[in-house]
Amino acid sequence: MTALTASKDSQAEAAVREAIRSVPSLQQEWFERARQRLNSLTKPLGSLGRLEEIAARVVAIRESLRPDCSKKTIFTLAADHGVTEEGVSAYPKAVTRQMVLNFLSGGAAINVLCRQFGIDVVIVDIGVDGDTENLAGLVRKKVARGTQNMACGPAMSAEEMYRAVQVGIELAEEAARGGGTLIGTGEMGIGNTTAASAITAVLTGRTTAEVTGRGAGLDDAGLRHKREVIERAMAVNHPEPSEPLEVLRKLGGLEIAGLTGVILGGAARRIPLVVDGFISTAAAAIACAVEPRVKDFLFAAHRSSEPGHEALLKFIGQEPLLDLNMRLGEGTGAALAMTLVESATRLMNEMATFSSAGVSEAGG
Amino acid sequence: MTALTASKDSQAEAAVREAIRSVPSLQQEWFERARQRLNSLTKPLGSLGRLEEIAARVVAIRESLRPDCSKKTIFTLAADHGVTEEGVSAYPKAVTRQMVLNFLSGGAAINVLCRQFGIDVVIVDIGVDGDTENLAGLVRKKVARGTQNMACGPAMSAEEMYRAVQVGIELAEEAARGGGTLIGTGEMGIGNTTAASAITAVLTGRTTAEVTGRGAGLDDAGLRHKREVIERAMAVNHPEPSEPLEVLRKLGGLEIAGLTGVILGGAARRIPLVVDGFISTAAAAIACAVEPRVKDFLFAAHRSSEPGHEALLKFIGQEPLLDLNMRLGEGTGAALAMTLVESATRLMNEMATFSSAGVSEAGG
Repeated sequence: MTALTASKDSQAEAAVREAIRSVPSLQQEWFERARQRLNSLTKPLGSLGRLEEIAARVVAIRESLRPDCSKKTIFTLAADHGVTEEGVSAYPKAVTRQMVLNFLSGGAAINVLCRQFGIDVVIVDIGVDGDTENLAGLVRKKVARGTQNMACGPAMSAEEMYRAVQVGIELAEEAARGGGTLIGTGEMGIGNTTAASAITAVLTGRTTAEVTGRGAGLDDAGLRHKREVIERAMAVNHPEPSEPLEVLRKLGGLEIAGLTGVILGGAARRIPLVVDGFISTAAAAIACAVEPRVKDFLFAAHRSSEPGHEALLKFIGQEPLLDLNMRLGEGTGAALAMTLVESATRLMNEMATFSSAGVSEAGG
Repeated sequence: MTALTASKDSQAEAAVREAIRSVPSLQQEWFERARQRLNSLTKPLGSLGRLEEIAARVVAIRESLRPDCSKKTIFTLAADHGVTEEGVSAYPKAVTRQMVLNFLSGGAAINVLCRQFGIDVVIVDIGVDGDTENLAGLVRKKVARGTQNMACGPAMSAEEMYRAVQVGIELAEEAARGGGTLIGTGEMGIGNTTAASAITAVLTGRTTAEVTGRGAGLDDAGLRHKREVIERAMAVNHPEPSEPLEVLRKLGGLEIAGLTGVILGGAARRIPLVVDGFISTAAAAIACAVEPRVKDFLFAAHRSSEPGHEALLKFIGQEPLLDLNMRLGEGTGAALAMTLVESATRLMNEMATFSSAGVSEAGG
């Protein structure tokens, strides 16, 4: 048993190291080719603004002048958090599993948006503390029944952390094999803004007070308590920003680790990634800390109203595409922003050129 | 002939006055009913941010707790501007008609986005200075072959202005009769940022320098000249902000007048209206100056990079939904934002409630 575990361990860690090594660098040449194509289209130069920047970056990611972004998948990873026993959320822990059932029956916000925009939503149990056998439509990749309480020690063992990241990598690889061309991240986990705030404080060097918000709806006393719990987790775990995977292991969640894997795996396969809100960006920040080349594959979906999000966005080097004061998670912001990324590439692929349409150019 | 013209005149003016009178006031009661419904859905309270505000306002506009916004139409009105003879645009005037052909063959940016999002795009010749007979798919409502040069006198006669507004009202009414539930505005007209800048300066009291930008791509000298031309138009026409339809007549364009009509007609029929960028917002500002109740029916699609747009957005009392540095017109920003309005109403209509999904509420 010990030997088997050790072997599985090193296998997961090896898979994670391999994905990190495989993240390519984008080539400037492709940005220039994209710019030439964009300038030939029937519109004033640069008048599509950020959509042109998106299109150019997708060209460089895919190394194709006609990149497709229509095969869209959102991975919504669900997991529980040991730290909920400290009373850090306005909602009971049981809601994680209840919301998984809601996702599977199509009644959650993410389902509505994915139906509207033709996005496949893949619901993954990566660490729900409850039975999920025999639930039709659920992808079962449970690494553990939730994390340990980070206020008392590390949230995960090294084995759990690497396996959760590996699960994410495999999800992205499966999407790539199935022809997926755009991936969005999503999550569900009562207590996970506590984990994300702790990660944010460590990676960005901000104070706990600066990066900790009300999550799903804490009052003032609840917010003060949540900050104290995070301070305790810091004191107990001594996380070091120079060791991002250790930060993830000590303060993260299984769904956050899984999303770190989705992002590493997607980047390694040259798939553009739309990162949802605060929790997803914490996962992206871990991936970028591990391998800065990942940043070029990311599109930040929206500016969450959680106070720590701004620091994380700066850390991953991305301006969000939307700013709608949302803070729901699940991948809802990603769903909206993925349609913008799809629009950007469709415009580049489908618009007529000045010469093909017989339209006079500027100064003519 | 004189009698006939006079009769048509007063008929158009009467139709405009009737639409203005028909714009209803929204009732607070419907906002409260919408809020109750939104708070029952499986998400933290308020966590859908601005999407919840949109949904509540659509409820109040439609006076229905299950409003549909899936039957979407963008009216892209094309017209020419006499002021182009002053050399105020980087593009030749012929491009207006060339772009109409591009719209009809599906190669323009607005076509791509409308295909992606299932929006009907209706291309209307309301004042193109060129032949458009026998063009399949074009709605021909030509009021005149472009406006007169506003640097030398009024851009339109009273007859032309009222007829153009009436055309817009009729377009909105036709959409309403066909079951349309969401309308977006769009335009094409070389020279129309000059008209929109002049309108903006008068209605908002800003200086010409503050509200005049490079349009489709003027250089520094071109921008200085454009400002001088607008100053001349002001000096010749003496527009008064207290008479918005006269401002429209003196400085506007036929497509701007038409969009003012689309907005008045849509509001009169209780249809939510998504206003595109700078030109469309100038049309909306005229409508709001004529009847401030119109404001409640408007959603500002995006923040254009034209410098005058900010002042217009403030004037119509709307925060834009998107900020993507776009400045293309045609209705492209409206197309993107209409999908957000549709998302907001779909979420309200389709999400499960806490009780129906068996999800515990906060504090549970």
